[in-house]
Amino acid sequence: MSEKDPAAGPARLPLAGLRILELGHYIAAPFATRLLADLGAEVIKVEPPEGDPVRGWGSEVGGHAVWFSVHGRNKLSVTLNLKDAGDKAKLRRLVARSDALVENFRPGQLERYGLGPAELHAVNPRLVIARISGYGQDGPYRDKPAFGAIGEAMGGLRHLTANPGQTTLPPPRCGVSISDDLAGMYAAMALVAGCWQVKGDPAARGRIIDVDLVGSVFSLMEGMLPEYGLFGWVRQPQGAAIKTAAPTNTYPCADGKWLCIAGNSDLIFRRLMAAIGRPEAAAEPRFATNALRCENVAELDAMIAAWTRTLPAAEAEAVLETAEVPCSRLYDMRDCAEDPHFRARQMVMPVQDPLIGEVLHPAAPFRLDGVSPREMVRWTGPAAGAHNEQVFEMLAKEEGA
Amino acid sequence: MSEKDPAAGPARLPLAGLRILELGHYIAAPFATRLLADLGAEVIKVEPPEGDPVRGWGSEVGGHAVWFSVHGRNKLSVTLNLKDAGDKAKLRRLVARSDALVENFRPGQLERYGLGPAELHAVNPRLVIARISGYGQDGPYRDKPAFGAIGEAMGGLRHLTANPGQTTLPPPRCGVSISDDLAGMYAAMALVAGCWQVKGDPAARGRIIDVDLVGSVFSLMEGMLPEYGLFGWVRQPQGAAIKTAAPTNTYPCADGKWLCIAGNSDLIFRRLMAAIGRPEAAAEPRFATNALRCENVAELDAMIAAWTRTLPAAEAEAVLETAEVPCSRLYDMRDCAEDPHFRARQMVMPVQDPLIGEVLHPAAPFRLDGVSPREMVRWTGPAAGAHNEQVFEMLAKEEGA
Repeated sequence: MSEKDPAAGPARLPLAGLRILELGHYIAAPFATRLLADLGAEVIKVEPPEGDPVRGWGSEVGGHAVWFSVHGRNKLSVTLNLKDAGDKAKLRRLVARSDALVENFRPGQLERYGLGPAELHAVNPRLVIARISGYGQDGPYRDKPAFGAIGEAMGGLRHLTANPGQTTLPPPRCGVSISDDLAGMYAAMALVAGCWQVKGDPAARGRIIDVDLVGSVFSLMEGMLPEYGLFGWVRQPQGAAIKTAAPTNTYPCADGKWLCIAGNSDLIFRRLMAAIGRPEAAAEPRFATNALRCENVAELDAMIAAWTRTLPAAEAEAVLETAEVPCSRLYDMRDCAEDPHFRARQMVMPVQDPLIGEVLHPAAPFRLDGVSPREMVRWTGPAAGAHNEQVFEMLAKEEGA
Repeated sequence: MSEKDPAAGPARLPLAGLRILELGHYIAAPFATRLLADLGAEVIKVEPPEGDPVRGWGSEVGGHAVWFSVHGRNKLSVTLNLKDAGDKAKLRRLVARSDALVENFRPGQLERYGLGPAELHAVNPRLVIARISGYGQDGPYRDKPAFGAIGEAMGGLRHLTANPGQTTLPPPRCGVSISDDLAGMYAAMALVAGCWQVKGDPAARGRIIDVDLVGSVFSLMEGMLPEYGLFGWVRQPQGAAIKTAAPTNTYPCADGKWLCIAGNSDLIFRRLMAAIGRPEAAAEPRFATNALRCENVAELDAMIAAWTRTLPAAEAEAVLETAEVPCSRLYDMRDCAEDPHFRARQMVMPVQDPLIGEVLHPAAPFRLDGVSPREMVRWTGPAAGAHNEQVFEMLAKEEGA
């Protein structure tokens, strides 16, 4: 592959040649296929004639949602009405030549279309099928309505995203669709694993993969489940501090922004105290070790905050960086987009979108030797049905061949 | 594979037969390999003689960290001193028979051991190498010290995890090592993609994959980068509410817990108001549409909170569920572990750990047809070096064959 024709562009990407069908909408399944398309897979996104409703989300230019430029990139879009017999026959032709399919309908919906795993495998027994849903394909909550925040709440994350003892304001959301994203990532990972299993084994059959939003979030709970089982401990929110390390916290700055500082090791602590003009504090016995600093953390945090409040976050950050104290202000989108490291790594790159104009795209989250991040964005999110003709012409050729 | 001998246990898992070396410590690389091992890959974790320092994290039983029962499950542990020539030769023998390697040393460290990608590919040109670091393998911040919260802060997530206008308490952390987890997931996904590319192609060579914590978090920023580029908009934190949907928020309950309610569609809004004993409010013109409710959201939120404050979260949840209003209390670890859906889906399962006793394990986040979640936990996290003999005996046999 990559070695045979290094000039072939997409062919240098690892999943070049892998054929994936997306029956997705909103976030989870389309995010899974966006990652797989970034890695070089051929993704055909099957949408209803009116398009994936995510196309109506957020701001737009000329009727085109700007997020979709990224969310739909590197995909082919085909519109089909899955209630129509003729369109269903077209879908079966697509299934017959695909390696994998990703869907995120509510459990049972694909079966109601007559397109459940049994029907799909009757057409193509080697098809890997990844299904994403709020609660999974079985279990007592299977049919409960899933909504955006449910995975975050039920998977255990929202309970932790809070300041301890704070009862007036609710724990904030993550601010992004974290449970959909995680489920999409797991579905993509298991899908490629299923394709790895099938590849080169003529006897192999495609698997059915069931990923749910709740379980995807729950998978990040580290040692909390063993600790609950063994000791009955229930982890409580810790806010921005870390109980076992001090000083390590997030501090308010003069411009209303926040600065995250990790100053808990003995050496770094001394550098930090010197940098904020309190070198004498570093010498005091009650701050001599991390354990002692944890006991007296309120006093330390107050000292540090008194200093950070005098400077804008970027300036305080620059002072501490010079002093070699690990820190980072809480980047907002401007900070990210204008940061020299982001630019140097092409994590942010201008891309020409024929529907919208110049759009900033984030790089794929994996960098590959011999491929620039820019090469991994082969085209921007297309209009719904933009590839109807191209895909079915390709199909007719393949079927005739 | 799976079809040839369906009774063979691990062989039914999709990555059975894939050989992965982990040169990892703490979270990101070991999390990547835990997921790959759950999917059936053979993972050999190479640790320094004193063991991965993550083994000292959190609570323990008899000197064994309880988290490691999960974090190290399904892996073989081999201890090697990478500064020792003899051990380095052993590592090269392992490299020679592996499909992939995952590492999360600081950039340059593997090269300083004389084990950089060039050296590894000299031993095995087909090896897929996944590298995880805080800022990536190049760019101006490459050598900056990475610390846990950096990816969250610099990738744009911490800025969003906040209540708007709230300036006294810092935005809380996610409460889990989200940036390490995301990077581990991306590394695992790209690694399998690299292995898919190599499989069955005798001319193919292994790729080098570079995943960073900052970029992994940044990948979740949805439409925020295009919106910044096109309009100069900088997304600000929205707390627990959603600006464009009302009422949808998180409300305080009598037991100090929180209840997340999504009551913004017209029909559900009416059911919600009836359930909380305010059916007349649903009929008022100023709450007639979602747009009007968004304008008058403070009043609505106060009404709903006045009701939730009278009941413990679980009871309020039960009332709303009966009324078919989507809601979820913010689950803590007890809620997760005791929930009937979690139990029915085997998302929580007791596993016998020979080092610790009975430990609750979370299921793998992907369910596979024909495999029970319990079968995917083949063994619990082993002691450091537990498989030294077994692995090198296996190696000697392979080399002799």
